[in-house]
Amino acid sequence: MSKPQHKSALSESGSNPASSNVSAESAKRIRSFRKNKFSEEELLKDLLKGNKTALGRSITLIESNQKKNQKQAEYIVEGALPYAHKSIRIGITGVPGVGKSTFIESFGSYLIEKGKKVAVLAVDPSSSVSHGSILGDKTRMEKLVTMEDAFIRPSPSGDSLGGVARKTRESILLCEAAGFDVILIETVGVGQSETTVHSMTDFFLLLKLAGAGDELQGIKRGIVEMADAIVINKADGDNQKPARDAKLEFRRALQLYPPKESDWKPEVKLCSALYNEGISEVWEMIELFHSKTKENGHFQKNRLEQNKFWLYQTVNDYLKSRFYEEPTIKAALKEQLSLIEENKTTAFAAAKYLLSLA
Amino acid sequence: MSKPQHKSALSESGSNPASSNVSAESAKRIRSFRKNKFSEEELLKDLLKGNKTALGRSITLIESNQKKNQKQAEYIVEGALPYAHKSIRIGITGVPGVGKSTFIESFGSYLIEKGKKVAVLAVDPSSSVSHGSILGDKTRMEKLVTMEDAFIRPSPSGDSLGGVARKTRESILLCEAAGFDVILIETVGVGQSETTVHSMTDFFLLLKLAGAGDELQGIKRGIVEMADAIVINKADGDNQKPARDAKLEFRRALQLYPPKESDWKPEVKLCSALYNEGISEVWEMIELFHSKTKENGHFQKNRLEQNKFWLYQTVNDYLKSRFYEEPTIKAALKEQLSLIEENKTTAFAAAKYLLSLA
Repeated sequence: MSKPQHKSALSESGSNPASSNVSAESAKRIRSFRKNKFSEEELLKDLLKGNKTALGRSITLIESNQKKNQKQAEYIVEGALPYAHKSIRIGITGVPGVGKSTFIESFGSYLIEKGKKVAVLAVDPSSSVSHGSILGDKTRMEKLVTMEDAFIRPSPSGDSLGGVARKTRESILLCEAAGFDVILIETVGVGQSETTVHSMTDFFLLLKLAGAGDELQGIKRGIVEMADAIVINKADGDNQKPARDAKLEFRRALQLYPPKESDWKPEVKLCSALYNEGISEVWEMIELFHSKTKENGHFQKNRLEQNKFWLYQTVNDYLKSRFYEEPTIKAALKEQLSLIEENKTTAFAAAKYLLSLA
Repeated sequence: MSKPQHKSALSESGSNPASSNVSAESAKRIRSFRKNKFSEEELLKDLLKGNKTALGRSITLIESNQKKNQKQAEYIVEGALPYAHKSIRIGITGVPGVGKSTFIESFGSYLIEKGKKVAVLAVDPSSSVSHGSILGDKTRMEKLVTMEDAFIRPSPSGDSLGGVARKTRESILLCEAAGFDVILIETVGVGQSETTVHSMTDFFLLLKLAGAGDELQGIKRGIVEMADAIVINKADGDNQKPARDAKLEFRRALQLYPPKESDWKPEVKLCSALYNEGISEVWEMIELFHSKTKENGHFQKNRLEQNKFWLYQTVNDYLKSRFYEEPTIKAALKEQLSLIEENKTTAFAAAKYLLSLA
């Protein structure tokens, strides 16, 4: 842990000794630097009071790749841990264009009007390239961003999915410790990121569109199976009839799946996020899920299993990267993969050879 | 490699010098010992000629956990490799009671009558406990076992799924090198073993029953998504109507899935393995799949990807077992998991601590 700073940030900003041999410009720079130099104790204290600025700064520490910041982040996460876990974590996925931002705007505002505190996070490992394609465009959540009880944070970027996952999981804990009781975690409907979000949430919601062959557009195999609910968005105007048809289709399809460990039967709902229709029904469904799974013990069991999963996942990721990033292994792997392509070795002989080099 | 033996097994069994100072009993023992002591060169040569006894013995070497046998097995697998890969590998799964054995009996016999050579293997990691619950009861394949062009081998037992997978993959290569051109790999419809079989086959077939709520009985989530075909068995007698209904249901459900990488649209077929009905249609479908995916390149690409997958899988499994089987780690892991249960640490802090011990 880094050494605590004894002056509080507030007292500091009011009493800056700008001596005469310091130019006004550098005094301003020093002042701004000091302002940003919050101690981790103060950040934690403010965060636990529900201060959104402290929450934002703490998440910035989590996202930092600097050693010093990481130590501070560890201190804050550790201190926040006993106060976390008092929320429901909802994963939201769907292909681009399905209306995720509009849904979150509408759903989040509804929850805040009901007295909830809502945090919105995102998992988008592609954001290292696209610089945050989701949640980047906050104009689509213009109502939510202005609400006192909403906290919105785009996906950490410039990192692997594993890195994004760790940072998001720790951010969830901080949001909870800051008193946010509904955590929405958005992800795009392509690639591995759904599985990641599924493994850090209590309820997994798949947004769909009716008709237009959306069923066949880019949703990764297996996502339907993970969903606790399929919500068909844009069920308005001319879309109402196709949406109702799609609802029947999906309901039928979901029946073919075996029961979930939670004993929850996935539901299909219609909504129009744009016109605020069907939003309360989605929340009522999630509340029902929450009370049912709390009662049968699945809720707690699932969180515990997720924690254990992440322990193993973190260790395994590290073991693998340590092995495969070794230059000798890198070169030998390339060679062995060619031999496999030419049918000159088996996968097992190649693996054995690589391990003999480690 | 062990030293080659220059006498062939055949010449040996005819010319045993039972000298007078050796009792008849020990002479018999020596003879039987020598008979079993085939050299790996001879085994390989006989195997490549299609000798089923040599194939069986070679697979026994693969399944052995003795160092010497493993070296011999490596020699044979390496020598067989250039002659393998000329088959279609078909994975067959379904819950117990769905009629897998009867289906394989009927399907295998049909293929042999068409001039094919059919090998039947099994992946059942539970067999270490149940001592081979599948393919153990060969009486259910009484026709197939007697056929010259059939080779049936139960699941290797007493091993982890990873071990069973490796042994089965190498057994597939040997069967192919011995001239078997259809490889059926059976597995039970519970647990991880389907994913394993899916990742070593070209075509994945899910057997189902109509009605009786079979859809909801024990089939693991995700298996329907892996299937290239769902075959509804026991579609005979009073079952014909429910079977046709189930076919429609499944067909509708499958349409909701996104297209497969192979561009193959999974089909639903009816059959009665007991009455030999619908069997030829299943084969025609697989032949169509085969020619389509050979044409579009998926067949070859998929096999290559499977090989690469197994390379990584083997390395990763080894890295993990080396780490977690370390006594210090074992003890610390237990401790950290308790701390997680009590919410006293995060998954990431626990992982970091464990890695600091390695």
